[in-house]
Amino acid sequence: MKKKVTIKQIARELDVSVSTVSKALRDSKEISAETREKVQAFARLLNYRPNNIAISLKNRKTRNIGVIIPEIVHHFFTTVISGIEREANKAGYNVIVCLSDESFDKEVINMETLANGSIDGFILSLSKETQSRKDFHHLLEAVDQGMPLVMFDRVSDEIPGDKVVIDDVEGAGHAVNYLLDSGCERIALLTTVDYVSVGKLRTEGYIRALQAAGKAVSDALIVKIEDIDNCEQQIAELFDAEKFDAVFAVNELFAVTAMKVAQRRGLKIPEDISFMGFTDGMLSQYAFPTLTTVDQHGLEMGEKAAQLLIRRLENDDLDDESFVTEIISTSIKERESTRTFS
Amino acid sequence: MKKKVTIKQIARELDVSVSTVSKALRDSKEISAETREKVQAFARLLNYRPNNIAISLKNRKTRNIGVIIPEIVHHFFTTVISGIEREANKAGYNVIVCLSDESFDKEVINMETLANGSIDGFILSLSKETQSRKDFHHLLEAVDQGMPLVMFDRVSDEIPGDKVVIDDVEGAGHAVNYLLDSGCERIALLTTVDYVSVGKLRTEGYIRALQAAGKAVSDALIVKIEDIDNCEQQIAELFDAEKFDAVFAVNELFAVTAMKVAQRRGLKIPEDISFMGFTDGMLSQYAFPTLTTVDQHGLEMGEKAAQLLIRRLENDDLDDESFVTEIISTSIKERESTRTFS
Repeated sequence: MKKKVTIKQIARELDVSVSTVSKALRDSKEISAETREKVQAFARLLNYRPNNIAISLKNRKTRNIGVIIPEIVHHFFTTVISGIEREANKAGYNVIVCLSDESFDKEVINMETLANGSIDGFILSLSKETQSRKDFHHLLEAVDQGMPLVMFDRVSDEIPGDKVVIDDVEGAGHAVNYLLDSGCERIALLTTVDYVSVGKLRTEGYIRALQAAGKAVSDALIVKIEDIDNCEQQIAELFDAEKFDAVFAVNELFAVTAMKVAQRRGLKIPEDISFMGFTDGMLSQYAFPTLTTVDQHGLEMGEKAAQLLIRRLENDDLDDESFVTEIISTSIKERESTRTFS
Repeated sequence: MKKKVTIKQIARELDVSVSTVSKALRDSKEISAETREKVQAFARLLNYRPNNIAISLKNRKTRNIGVIIPEIVHHFFTTVISGIEREANKAGYNVIVCLSDESFDKEVINMETLANGSIDGFILSLSKETQSRKDFHHLLEAVDQGMPLVMFDRVSDEIPGDKVVIDDVEGAGHAVNYLLDSGCERIALLTTVDYVSVGKLRTEGYIRALQAAGKAVSDALIVKIEDIDNCEQQIAELFDAEKFDAVFAVNELFAVTAMKVAQRRGLKIPEDISFMGFTDGMLSQYAFPTLTTVDQHGLEMGEKAAQLLIRRLENDDLDDESFVTEIISTSIKERESTRTFS
């Protein structure tokens, strides 16, 4: 039986990266002429059939929507999928999910898998590595060929298309103001490394809200966590080094871990210290005490992304000027980890 | 642009079920001749193209593996996906995921979506509704046409194929013995309704282990939870009605919820009451106290399922007699919610 050749196999055989093969096949000037020729000759030899999105789009409607998400560990992405499913199913579309695993290469491979005639359009949230590299050639090509693409949460202005985001700066600001209003004085921040766009924006919101309230911003109270496995350790070090009466975390995993660190030290929540997370997921709901959190409304985000994509799929005449960026508002979900106030 | 017609649309137009359309198109004798004719005539009118798995299999290898899982709320399924991804990627395959949402109709529609030339083979865990109906015609047809199918966790003997399961009876028995060995006397069971195969088997394991230890089995201590939203209420009622010093739950969601109910009543874990879950997921790891649990080794289960599927994809000459059922052994992951003993 004849096997289909993939970009990954070509990359492995020639000992170059997936990205190099992907760009060389598209004759990108970023790749040296020599490498381009080598890759293209090898691809011809193997009868590699590049995606031809335009042809597949003309020939049929699959009624399938492809979704590429970075991971399914964070509950946020699973709620977005539920929202997409709900809206897509209502309109008679099915949903196919691929995971990029936060890897640029896997994102490129996922595009190859799905754009090969399996789907009518995409919904995607960028992988960390794609954000850090700022290499969007695989997405730009799909868009160029007329494949509709809606991005959510982790988006880039360099890619034309409909987008669904929350106002991360504002959401983080609300969280900080809520903690201040409940009487907290020193708020520590648990955030991600800077190249993750949402972490950076939430950090900005935290800083701005403190400044607006006339509070000092202390670098010592800001912990940037890169490796989730090392998260408890880093948080414990913060508790050793600093005094504070509130913790704001840019995701629920960091928040719940921080609550555990505090409880192990005999601190009472929320009497001694308050906790606020971001994303209303399973961990927040099932934590003890339950976690007050900035609700990103992932379900609504998924529904909106699906609506935007379906609108484009069912109206061939929509042009690029009709691209919209929908901003979903956040709200604070009050639970047991923060003090009540009137 | 010509739109593809789907089973769901035909069902909606004719006001019959997805299952009826699916069976009528396959000329199943379960459907009346009149309905079969009506459905088939309508499908012809709309130019419905039924799946022809055999043809798509002969023509190409996609190097894609389709995975259909009931839901992504339980961390178990997400770890299985990680295992499948890991093993598939290693062998040069990509993974496409669809969710059945515990619905029979969506499972049928997912099969239609994926089997239409997008994938080389399937990995699947049955939806609750499919288990309760015992209607497997959509899967049997795929198998008949030569589409390799590997089932995991929620499987059925009525479907020929490779299977990966854990010994749920044994796993539950280990959990009960562990609790007894640590000095617990009366163990309550939080389980699912009987038609969910794994819940039923784990209940059986609980009963057998108690009997083997010469302990009484009390129906009053066994709570069958159907609706997850009502779970906390049902557990609170158990605490009101009965006295016990340990809780064994067939999933981590029930276990973590039960811990919360106990903590709200001022009970100390594990001094006053011990808790044991099933599945080693995020909730178990991040709970406070952390939850002792029966580790199902979801990652290993996913890896094994992918290996079995790839073995079949790459060896065309394997016959039905080579079908295997792999049993993954469980182990107890000791954490803070149970008493230590030597």
